[in-house]
Amino acid sequence: MMKKTLLAWTFLAITLLGQAQVNNTYSLMPVPAQLTENGQPLAITAAFKVSVKGRPDARLYAEASRFVRRLSNKTGIFLDKQGYVTTADTALDAPLLLQVQRPGKLVLGENEAYTITTTTKQVLVTAVTDLGAIHALETLLQLVSTNNRGYYIPGVAINDRPRFAWRGLLLDVALHFMPVEVVKRTLDGMAAVKMNVLHLHLCNDQGFRVESKVLPRLQQVAADGIFYTQAQVREMVGYAAQRGIRVVPEFVVPAHTTAILKAYPEYASVPRKYTLQRYFGVFDPVMDPTNEQLYPFLEKLYTEMASLFPDAYLHIGGDENTGKDWLNTPHIKAFMQAHGMAKYMDLQTYFNRRLLPIIRKTGKTMMGWDEILQPGVPKNIVIESWRGNDAYYSSLRQGYQAILSYGYYIDLIQPASYHYQNEPAPDSAHLTADEVKRILGGEATMWSELVTPLTVDSRIWPRTAAIAERLWSPKTVTDVDDMYRRLNAVSLHLEALGLQHQLYKQMLLRQLANGGNTQALEVLVNVLEPLKIYERNEGDTMYSVFSPFTKLADVATPDQALPRQFAKQVEGYLAAPNAALEDTIAQQLTLWRDNDAAFKQLLNNSPVLGEAAALSEHLAQLAAAGLEALTYLHGHTKASAHWLQQKQATITKARQQGGRCEIQVVDPVARLVAKAGE
Amino acid sequence: MMKKTLLAWTFLAITLLGQAQVNNTYSLMPVPAQLTENGQPLAITAAFKVSVKGRPDARLYAEASRFVRRLSNKTGIFLDKQGYVTTADTALDAPLLLQVQRPGKLVLGENEAYTITTTTKQVLVTAVTDLGAIHALETLLQLVSTNNRGYYIPGVAINDRPRFAWRGLLLDVALHFMPVEVVKRTLDGMAAVKMNVLHLHLCNDQGFRVESKVLPRLQQVAADGIFYTQAQVREMVGYAAQRGIRVVPEFVVPAHTTAILKAYPEYASVPRKYTLQRYFGVFDPVMDPTNEQLYPFLEKLYTEMASLFPDAYLHIGGDENTGKDWLNTPHIKAFMQAHGMAKYMDLQTYFNRRLLPIIRKTGKTMMGWDEILQPGVPKNIVIESWRGNDAYYSSLRQGYQAILSYGYYIDLIQPASYHYQNEPAPDSAHLTADEVKRILGGEATMWSELVTPLTVDSRIWPRTAAIAERLWSPKTVTDVDDMYRRLNAVSLHLEALGLQHQLYKQMLLRQLANGGNTQALEVLVNVLEPLKIYERNEGDTMYSVFSPFTKLADVATPDQALPRQFAKQVEGYLAAPNAALEDTIAQQLTLWRDNDAAFKQLLNNSPVLGEAAALSEHLAQLAAAGLEALTYLHGHTKASAHWLQQKQATITKARQQGGRCEIQVVDPVARLVAKAGE
Repeated sequence: MMKKTLLAWTFLAITLLGQAQVNNTYSLMPVPAQLTENGQPLAITAAFKVSVKGRPDARLYAEASRFVRRLSNKTGIFLDKQGYVTTADTALDAPLLLQVQRPGKLVLGENEAYTITTTTKQVLVTAVTDLGAIHALETLLQLVSTNNRGYYIPGVAINDRPRFAWRGLLLDVALHFMPVEVVKRTLDGMAAVKMNVLHLHLCNDQGFRVESKVLPRLQQVAADGIFYTQAQVREMVGYAAQRGIRVVPEFVVPAHTTAILKAYPEYASVPRKYTLQRYFGVFDPVMDPTNEQLYPFLEKLYTEMASLFPDAYLHIGGDENTGKDWLNTPHIKAFMQAHGMAKYMDLQTYFNRRLLPIIRKTGKTMMGWDEILQPGVPKNIVIESWRGNDAYYSSLRQGYQAILSYGYYIDLIQPASYHYQNEPAPDSAHLTADEVKRILGGEATMWSELVTPLTVDSRIWPRTAAIAERLWSPKTVTDVDDMYRRLNAVSLHLEALGLQHQLYKQMLLRQLANGGNTQALEVLVNVLEPLKIYERNEGDTMYSVFSPFTKLADVATPDQALPRQFAKQVEGYLAAPNAALEDTIAQQLTLWRDNDAAFKQLLNNSPVLGEAAALSEHLAQLAAAGLEALTYLHGHTKASAHWLQQKQATITKARQQGGRCEIQVVDPVARLVAKAGE
Repeated sequence: MMKKTLLAWTFLAITLLGQAQVNNTYSLMPVPAQLTENGQPLAITAAFKVSVKGRPDARLYAEASRFVRRLSNKTGIFLDKQGYVTTADTALDAPLLLQVQRPGKLVLGENEAYTITTTTKQVLVTAVTDLGAIHALETLLQLVSTNNRGYYIPGVAINDRPRFAWRGLLLDVALHFMPVEVVKRTLDGMAAVKMNVLHLHLCNDQGFRVESKVLPRLQQVAADGIFYTQAQVREMVGYAAQRGIRVVPEFVVPAHTTAILKAYPEYASVPRKYTLQRYFGVFDPVMDPTNEQLYPFLEKLYTEMASLFPDAYLHIGGDENTGKDWLNTPHIKAFMQAHGMAKYMDLQTYFNRRLLPIIRKTGKTMMGWDEILQPGVPKNIVIESWRGNDAYYSSLRQGYQAILSYGYYIDLIQPASYHYQNEPAPDSAHLTADEVKRILGGEATMWSELVTPLTVDSRIWPRTAAIAERLWSPKTVTDVDDMYRRLNAVSLHLEALGLQHQLYKQMLLRQLANGGNTQALEVLVNVLEPLKIYERNEGDTMYSVFSPFTKLADVATPDQALPRQFAKQVEGYLAAPNAALEDTIAQQLTLWRDNDAAFKQLLNNSPVLGEAAALSEHLAQLAAAGLEALTYLHGHTKASAHWLQQKQATITKARQQGGRCEIQVVDPVARLVAKAGE
């Protein structure tokens, strides 16, 4: 059956890609399963109104009202006539008619499909549930187009549904706390790209971030006063539900529990003075599974927390236990021996088996990171894979349902193209149909070691939209260039929702320039990216929770467009030299070469930029080398070995980090230099 | 006694202004009462720490911790060593020592004075209350300076205290609702410029914005679901208290009560179907003061609302009653006749006298807009003046305490210089010492007819900082140019706090350009301001609560810097013609003249900008006229009467509004043109 579906998708995707080539003006993200053009656009005028037929949830009226406001804000057209869309709005000839059979339930696998059919008189949306209709509204806003007469919805017929049921984003609010408004705007962004699960990582060694009435020491001594009240949790969960998004909470055990153990040290494996962790990484504190009192405690904890989150899933973490505190503690060692446990992970499996009925008693399905996948763990749990494909495929093969996070770690500052190409069911894995069925979906993970409310949007968006597309759109939708074209459009669309991924940058540039002109700084920053993977926080001790995240590596964003574009230009030029491209490249190199003088001016007034001084010089030297290489290539002259050697040194220098950033245009210049020597 | 103080201020201000001329690098706002230099700067290094001596409120430790984080964010210096400032931090040799005698009370007239004394070893802050010390922390952050070795606090001795005890900002959250995070960042901005009263305007014809448990229909049917929960009110009031700011709530009666009367129509003067008002202005609905049931109702309302706001003052509005619903209602007319009331305002005075004991029973002092000042109203209330100086002086002379808002209406889009020169006790008013004593202070008013959470920061900041200075600094601090220099610096400082007055503009420019290059749009927008006073919302019916506020008049900010600067340049040139200024002016005019072509390109892709098309053309024509005038002036040739007449027509056209905006550089060009004809 899955194969059949895949065939259908392949067909639809070909239809769509054909369209995309014909008409470059659609910038839908995620790409819908099926889209055909019908040549019947609907003009948007002040007469625009929305009607609803059928029996949707009350949620749809609020979302439809919000749609009208967003459309008005986007087009500048006064749509004052319809303040709110209400149950009284049932006119069948309204410019936008939403036909919905029933309220959608916020459960895994609920029907989220919809159709859109435009005619010059009306856009008709049909959906089984209001969740589908809400997705349709987001599609419509992305479709809004312009011509010399104004705004319109293009003439299209769309038939759309998600490929995977679980399209998640993990937001870590423990390492750096994220206030309610950050969570809300993140939810707005998720809804815009049809994601449907917010996974909140709510506690870790650095703090416990939810008010507990049953175990109040959790927020009293284990949170630095920084936590959500239960009212705020309800507010966020309600806001998410309004957007059609489930909220899955994670309370990690048995390791990463320094905060809990500070509040309740009696459950620790090793008696020591626990204080909140100020650094980030993997630490030894861990609960003592041999303490029988631990389980009633965990039951209290999970029962109360489960009651705050209506979702059917509860995440117990389970990752990164060093085992040291177990192996160094005689009574725990003795327990392991007595129970025939050879490795400390056997003890963690024991712990998980004890925990499972506690979670089940709350009515939830237990899920955890792939460390919890150990021999003997029951199958009715969900594995979230983060450590690599092996664990992921292994869990699918063993019969577990799985969620893929490996390859979607957006905190590691890799390009959107990398995440986009991370296919959950690649042909190379030779998964069976049943195994593929057990893939629930995937989750982008925004761990917050190095992000704050100021920068978090820029680390999530727009790259996460590419992951959202991977999880929603047909498997065959894989054109990276087209993805980047649409990512640009969706980025502007996300900004209209209030996401600050673009504008925080101007703000930080102004702050860093300290009142000076930001231009030279921006020229430099536009070729920088923060160090990737786990390089930035050297030895895990460079940054703490108190560090400033307002510096060069914070204003530099992941996946910079300009270096990507420059690399393409160089590639194109080397493949087929021509004067136009040569000019473009030379102009760009000249700008970089000459930027250092202006940058040095800024330094006088802004010592914080000192860490960028070497980068700016290196960029200038690199650009000079590139210009020299261009001259050789232009004159069809071969550069000397000596020159090559000199420039190689320049290139090596340009690869050095500065301010925890790297210059992103070294490779293309290196290619020009190498070519000049051929 | 007041005269003596004024003399002292004058002396201090002269000291200060003397300093300001010597050293232009301080950008303090408000200007402190006394500042002298001592040549002993303190370098800020990673060893920076804060100690506290004395007995402050717990609030000071939180503010000091926040200070450390802000300093770290500003300088990029890792101040991780001191995560939080705690009662354990008492080292007398800390780089920053705060000496505080006692916790400050959030009451009118509390001691807010502080001193700062820098040496190369330590910055010493002394204050009677922690409120003073918190002001000192803001001063210190504004003082942070740079040299080629890094960041430092200049060597200064500051002795500072406020001129007025009530330095307020009214934020209207009724006409357009402002979410909690907007209120919080507004409070951060207020604290940064030493304002100490947030006046929340919480209900009006458009909605009632606070959850009531006693009268729940208020939020159920009179708020469109848009209101603060009581928990949120407490959160905001607590946040304000943490910043040393009082929150004064306003619940306006007897007019502007359409929302209340929708929920409880039995208290209306005229029985009609009340619906929430969608437009802005003055409307007839009004409570019926002759209904004896009204007063128990008001007691319920005010008693509950008073309990949410710990401040000693409660604002009952009282403004803009048309009287029509009273005069057209027989039983009310009869009541007035029976009680010898000739005018409807006599009935309002009767109502106020009935209301006063109800407010007093809540333990609060009643205040209201200057309409409540009518013969027979007791003296123990506070009058907030908004309709002009006459009412203001009159209330002072009659023995009322008064707060000046007239002249501080920041919603009217007037320049900071206008508000800055609005002196609460001008010599020309010949107020007696007792009358001056009754001036509690002033309030900037951010009415929200035409602002949304997106634009509100740009309407409040940075102009309100100039009002804050007027209310804090010595009366003699009046240099407008220096105010603007410091306003620039404080604007950047406010942005670091999270205020979005600058960055929302880039966001809206991008949205309006619809993915196109924003440059041409920005050139145009930088000479535009929204129509001022009450011009923008023509006939009060152009905009409703549902209108888009994402257009040209929203991206255009008040008090644009570039036109101000251009006017100065033209003034300078006309006073003393020189080649350098002529060049500068010509370059600017050329940019404007040539901008229209690029702007027209944008229009193709962004129909919403159509409303700016004429403005862009007019600016180009105006600039061309200016360039021609310059040529005449350069050649010392007199322009012909015919030319003058033609250019006059161009100038007249350039004065036309477009998109509810006006070009701000017409006057200086008109001056060039006129001069060319002389």
